[in-house]
Amino acid sequence: MSSICKKRKNKGISSKDSMWIYGKHAVKAVLFNQKREILRFVLLESSKNFIEDVSFAIKTRKISYEIVDSDFFFSLFGKNAIHQGCAILVKKLKEQFLEELIIDKNDDRPFIFLDQVIDPQNIGSIMRAAAVFGARAVVMTEDHSPEITATVAKTASGALENIPLIKVVNLTQSLNLLKKNGFWVVGLDERSEKNLADIDLSGKFVFIIGSEGFGMRRLTKESCDFLAKLPGVSSFTTLNAAQAATISLYESCKQRKKGIEK
Amino acid sequence: MSSICKKRKNKGISSKDSMWIYGKHAVKAVLFNQKREILRFVLLESSKNFIEDVSFAIKTRKISYEIVDSDFFFSLFGKNAIHQGCAILVKKLKEQFLEELIIDKNDDRPFIFLDQVIDPQNIGSIMRAAAVFGARAVVMTEDHSPEITATVAKTASGALENIPLIKVVNLTQSLNLLKKNGFWVVGLDERSEKNLADIDLSGKFVFIIGSEGFGMRRLTKESCDFLAKLPGVSSFTTLNAAQAATISLYESCKQRKKGIEK
Repeated sequence: MSSICKKRKNKGISSKDSMWIYGKHAVKAVLFNQKREILRFVLLESSKNFIEDVSFAIKTRKISYEIVDSDFFFSLFGKNAIHQGCAILVKKLKEQFLEELIIDKNDDRPFIFLDQVIDPQNIGSIMRAAAVFGARAVVMTEDHSPEITATVAKTASGALENIPLIKVVNLTQSLNLLKKNGFWVVGLDERSEKNLADIDLSGKFVFIIGSEGFGMRRLTKESCDFLAKLPGVSSFTTLNAAQAATISLYESCKQRKKGIEK
Repeated sequence: MSSICKKRKNKGISSKDSMWIYGKHAVKAVLFNQKREILRFVLLESSKNFIEDVSFAIKTRKISYEIVDSDFFFSLFGKNAIHQGCAILVKKLKEQFLEELIIDKNDDRPFIFLDQVIDPQNIGSIMRAAAVFGARAVVMTEDHSPEITATVAKTASGALENIPLIKVVNLTQSLNLLKKNGFWVVGLDERSEKNLADIDLSGKFVFIIGSEGFGMRRLTKESCDFLAKLPGVSSFTTLNAAQAATISLYESCKQRKKGIEK
């Protein structure tokens, strides 16, 4: 057992500064993220072959693991968590600020702003799409946003390690900051006349996704340069927040890639 | 209380022929679906104002409700279900067959085939996208597919009421049937050279989504007319099955709508 784990062997539960992450893909991403401080790494005996998958990282970083029983997982995560027999206790990542992320003026990756999206699985799923389609960060408000839990991390499937998830005090002020720095703000709104795909998304963009059921708040909506809808055929069913965000990022990535090819 | 509910008052648990559905949106869709036989409708006292939302349906169909306590919900769905204080016990919908759905030769709505996608939330989310973007049906195999549970129904957010969810014995044979009936088969495969958006999706299409981690099985892949990827920038993170299906249906819907406008 490495010294890092010996020292903290008894620190089994998460605290203000630490959190548990479970699931093979999310744990693997943590192990390969040099910036992430690891406090404890546990496995079920039946999941021991996962070690082969991460052997390079644990050898390089001198991280050891403990075999625990299923009661250990049950007591930490309950019976419904799909933990796949592996979990890791980590220090939370250093908080990042919007101001730091816009220093590089040539960086044209989009931001996703969430206006009171509260479902942890939706947030995890949005993080995952942000990683796949190359977003710069996902931004939420400090109030009316959930804690970053193991559920978010599991659904994000590793994306928590490379996409900043930022909490801001005031969404409108943050949007104004981005607008002053050359960003266009597009709010997803199913009542809009314009289709998202009909907007030229080359340039710097922020996409805003509102809460399910209520959409964007009035002030958020007023901050938008464009409102755009996604094409659909149903008057009854709508997409959830994660699906709307995923499509926005897909459309943006597709247009930006086409721009580069030209 | 209406006669329909009196007769079956004691039938509190789901059986082979019935299932519970919870969550406001899913329950509302059930109440407005005349084809769905309702066995029991329960509410928490605190969710009683939901009745206003569905008053037209319950008056027309003469459906009554019972107020139950939170233990009732806990015993049926556990502590993590987001039931929003309302649930409905329904008869399962009549099984539909692929053969019935292709009788109308002018119907060019796409099919989504799932090759061993097993996560109930992913399936629910795919159903929701299928409803929004106007798919004809979602098709799974009888083996290696989960039961249609309350979780699927909740995530589908009402889509279970209007999109057929079909189980077939053999995926390859079903694909061959569709091919004989003029459908093109596109398999989503991140290792493909071709982008989905570069395929002309006007016409009749089937989209195949493989399982997370493993993708499509060999025989399924061999049945494809095209393999297509979605554009992405990450080599580490991939989309989940629901995200890949949502984007496929979005791209198809967008192209079909553009075709109609021309």
